[in-house]
Amino acid sequence: MKNTKLKGIIAYPITPFDTNEKVDISLYKQLLERLIVSGSHAVAPLGSTGVMPYLNDEEKEAITEATVEQVKGRVPILAGVSNLTTERTIYHAKAAEKAGVDAVMIIPMSYWKLSDDEIVKHYDAVASKISIPIMAYNNPATAGIDMSPALLKRILEIPNVTMIKESTGDVQRMHYLKKEFGENAAFYNGSNPLALSAFAAGASGWCTAAPNLIPELNIALYNAVQENDFQEAQKLFYKQINLLRFIVEKGLPRAIKAGLTIQGIDGGHLRKPLEPLTERESSDLSSILNLISSN
Amino acid sequence: MKNTKLKGIIAYPITPFDTNEKVDISLYKQLLERLIVSGSHAVAPLGSTGVMPYLNDEEKEAITEATVEQVKGRVPILAGVSNLTTERTIYHAKAAEKAGVDAVMIIPMSYWKLSDDEIVKHYDAVASKISIPIMAYNNPATAGIDMSPALLKRILEIPNVTMIKESTGDVQRMHYLKKEFGENAAFYNGSNPLALSAFAAGASGWCTAAPNLIPELNIALYNAVQENDFQEAQKLFYKQINLLRFIVEKGLPRAIKAGLTIQGIDGGHLRKPLEPLTERESSDLSSILNLISSN
Amino acid sequence: MKNTKLKGIIAYPITPFDTNEKVDISLYKQLLERLIVSGSHAVAPLGSTGVMPYLNDEEKEAITEATVEQVKGRVPILAGVSNLTTERTIYHAKAAEKAGVDAVMIIPMSYWKLSDDEIVKHYDAVASKISIPIMAYNNPATAGIDMSPALLKRILEIPNVTMIKESTGDVQRMHYLKKEFGENAAFYNGSNPLALSAFAAGASGWCTAAPNLIPELNIALYNAVQENDFQEAQKLFYKQINLLRFIVEKGLPRAIKAGLTIQGIDGGHLRKPLEPLTERESSDLSSILNLISSN
Amino acid sequence: MKNTKLKGIIAYPITPFDTNEKVDISLYKQLLERLIVSGSHAVAPLGSTGVMPYLNDEEKEAITEATVEQVKGRVPILAGVSNLTTERTIYHAKAAEKAGVDAVMIIPMSYWKLSDDEIVKHYDAVASKISIPIMAYNNPATAGIDMSPALLKRILEIPNVTMIKESTGDVQRMHYLKKEFGENAAFYNGSNPLALSAFAAGASGWCTAAPNLIPELNIALYNAVQENDFQEAQKLFYKQINLLRFIVEKGLPRAIKAGLTIQGIDGGHLRKPLEPLTERESSDLSSILNLISSN
Repeated sequence: MKNTKLKGIIAYPITPFDTNEKVDISLYKQLLERLIVSGSHAVAPLGSTGVMPYLNDEEKEAITEATVEQVKGRVPILAGVSNLTTERTIYHAKAAEKAGVDAVMIIPMSYWKLSDDEIVKHYDAVASKISIPIMAYNNPATAGIDMSPALLKRILEIPNVTMIKESTGDVQRMHYLKKEFGENAAFYNGSNPLALSAFAAGASGWCTAAPNLIPELNIALYNAVQENDFQEAQKLFYKQINLLRFIVEKGLPRAIKAGLTIQGIDGGHLRKPLEPLTERESSDLSSILNLISSN
Repeated sequence: MKNTKLKGIIAYPITPFDTNEKVDISLYKQLLERLIVSGSHAVAPLGSTGVMPYLNDEEKEAITEATVEQVKGRVPILAGVSNLTTERTIYHAKAAEKAGVDAVMIIPMSYWKLSDDEIVKHYDAVASKISIPIMAYNNPATAGIDMSPALLKRILEIPNVTMIKESTGDVQRMHYLKKEFGENAAFYNGSNPLALSAFAAGASGWCTAAPNLIPELNIALYNAVQENDFQEAQKLFYKQINLLRFIVEKGLPRAIKAGLTIQGIDGGHLRKPLEPLTERESSDLSSILNLISSN
Repeated sequence: MKNTKLKGIIAYPITPFDTNEKVDISLYKQLLERLIVSGSHAVAPLGSTGVMPYLNDEEKEAITEATVEQVKGRVPILAGVSNLTTERTIYHAKAAEKAGVDAVMIIPMSYWKLSDDEIVKHYDAVASKISIPIMAYNNPATAGIDMSPALLKRILEIPNVTMIKESTGDVQRMHYLKKEFGENAAFYNGSNPLALSAFAAGASGWCTAAPNLIPELNIALYNAVQENDFQEAQKLFYKQINLLRFIVEKGLPRAIKAGLTIQGIDGGHLRKPLEPLTERESSDLSSILNLISSN
Repeated sequence: MKNTKLKGIIAYPITPFDTNEKVDISLYKQLLERLIVSGSHAVAPLGSTGVMPYLNDEEKEAITEATVEQVKGRVPILAGVSNLTTERTIYHAKAAEKAGVDAVMIIPMSYWKLSDDEIVKHYDAVASKISIPIMAYNNPATAGIDMSPALLKRILEIPNVTMIKESTGDVQRMHYLKKEFGENAAFYNGSNPLALSAFAAGASGWCTAAPNLIPELNIALYNAVQENDFQEAQKLFYKQINLLRFIVEKGLPRAIKAGLTIQGIDGGHLRKPLEPLTERESSDLSSILNLISSN
């Protein structure tokens, strides 16, 4: 699996907490197993969905190890290892590689807005310490930095940076990546409501938390695209769009947790400052999920 | 043709001027004829491409009449009639209907940011004075107002407002229109670099100045979509994307005029303050057009 | 008065319409007279407040001439002459000079986003045809173009462009102008809620419609600044800030018209698509004006 | 000093690192001492300038303790204690109080965009665990959340939240705070280039890293304001504006470190991913500092 590019539906598990806000590893494994058996093409622990930035070093390592144990090679694992400092990012990237993941995802988290040179050095420093592939992740909404196409081009010159996850919500960025890099770099859609446009633009995969709630629809959309069936893809997309919008608008960890509860599945608790959806919001989510099931 | 919704490639002619900055009607007719014979599904005089806001009342009427004369019923005509005041918009809408166009396009041009109620009253006042269909046009970049989906919904309650042209550049708006209105309202893409995403989202047509330069590619893209051939549509889109981006980035009237010159076609002169592209810009456009021809 | 830079409170009259939406010149003169006798340091017909873009050529000329007649040299006149095309801008600038105004204000109105070179040529073409001073006006919210400090620097090289009106709402722009040009170019604040910051930054004057409603407070603020009384200026500013915010938020022509009605003064009618404030909005304005009077 | 509101120049030290990227506490104390003896009215360790988010728990506690030791009660201490999770924020707030600081500053750092309710609960949870005053800090550029005036109003209802630091760069926010809260809440300017406007608007103090390089000018500006000398304040502001802009544009830790080197003072090293300014940038900073000294 090493050095293989990922494709298809890359599913993001949440990180469940117990009533004392401690990570609940046993429950995590159960939630992860659901993603695997429902047909996801890969799993991605320690993403935004998994509230990675809210976890301490020990907790991150425990999640990575639990993922490898549970997956048992059935699907590739893409682990988040981003950190504010270069030193900590290297630390977690090495730990993830040692634990046995297939690739790591790195977003240049910033407090201070980093220069292009600083970002390139950051990726380079991490890449030189590991031998598994890196997915460079662009998401200005959570990271505070928007990596320009020109910067991404520089980062892709680093040998083991082979994938880009685009989450600006602007499909033009994906057009640029496809036009500029063609087969030399795979790009992945990280913006749920762009799922259809991204596949039309040539995305290799879709990084999404939605398979926690509607795996069949997510996978069916990908299959329609693979079968060159434009009309079916459009139909499937409009069937799930309201859910995709909802989970993004309310925040993935909160929305997925609420959706699991509605579906009768234990999703554990959130870590503060994150709070559960309000009753009204949960009720809206219920309606969306019901409408999907009844069609 | 009356009350029929438009579809396919809706081509926007430029308005050519002579060396004294007077509108050149004879040349206009030649340029319009090129759009018709190259297979465009409709033509749209007095759009942004046709620098409508730079023309006085007499010039606008002359263009509309020349269009009807030249088209001779071969394709539907969608005429721009927008104006800053409601009174002038009504004046031009009535004149266009009388001249024999099939539909009118109205953008709520603003100097003062209009309230939602003012915009609805504006459309309503014009719609009540004509019986041909109206396309409501949303383009914050040129008009200074961004009509929200909720406002568009109100405008669509006016009986003869039957079409929406979306030019925000945000494909989510199109998803919303399709999901909300389905078959009750057709939406058209006015953002050239979104051509592929818009068709994937279900757009009925593409309002574009590109057929002045590359009509075959524009029409082929539409045909691939009609034939449900996702992969062919993607291939055709990437073949033309650099031109689509270029003409938007440089401004449609300037870029189309320069492209016509490169193709050996007389496109007349621009009206000031618009100036021709620089030599460097024209040379870039040449390269883009050459690359398209040679593929 | 020719070539003299303006200073102090530059008051913007509204353009009143009759019940048939015709310009009411007689009422205009009465409203203008109020601004003069209340102590404004200059008047500025045909600004945004005077809905200049909604007027036709004849109406614009009639307003300019009426202004000169009414003012009779008591205060300087700054007349708006902006137009979408260079030819029409020259036409109105020459007409205003001939009518006897002291300076003209030009904003590069755009439908198509103009390049820096186009804007410089536009100003240059107009400036070469008149000998009175020009105020270059930057207001992206109404004009659709934001002139950068670097562009303004180029425009200021044109001999009779001697003043800049800054309405981006960003006080840093004013700091830049003051730091860069010092005594070589005067800058004027066009953003009402920035009145205090702008004077602190060194603005020569304040272009404002507020003297239609609260001339004493506007002038008192200017006087406190002239007397180097920081604390008094701050006190006077906070006394009027809610009105300044309100008139900007609701649109100057609508809000001034409503305020005049509240004060028992005939302000005529608006031209559509502009509609009067709602009852609720007028009631809010009443409260703001009452609170100011009672303090 | 407890419960006293801060005022004047609140100086932010950098956190220096040794060649192995370890925090250099001894050098930190020397740099802090410079701020105290140069006349700063308060000091603020563990701010953005002090790269607080790049430090681990032990390092943060060491800096706080070193500050208390070095200050010895000469000036008030405002310590940064923000953290992504509520639990860690409480931990550091309690540690800072125990160490003996006078007030804590809390910014709602976000990875996931927090709701207003989540932010209020976050502040409330921390405030209930300490008895020293809290400064709520609004800085969307670094934190990713923009707290609206309405939200700040809610937060100010928490008894020991008594101060607001405003760093949006929009002086209107400060006008709002002053108008709405008057003497009930002090607001502080965190945007260096807004120093003059903020004092004009009524700011109680200026949170700034500039005293690391030009303490005399910063303090002189504050004194001119206190003496109601508008013209002198303006003159002093324009003398320092280029430096204020430069340090913000290049990032405070990088720019302060480079400025110290230019002034012959050891500022230690940066922690990666932050890199030193380029030679060209340092040379620009040199010119700015020279021009200030020579005037």
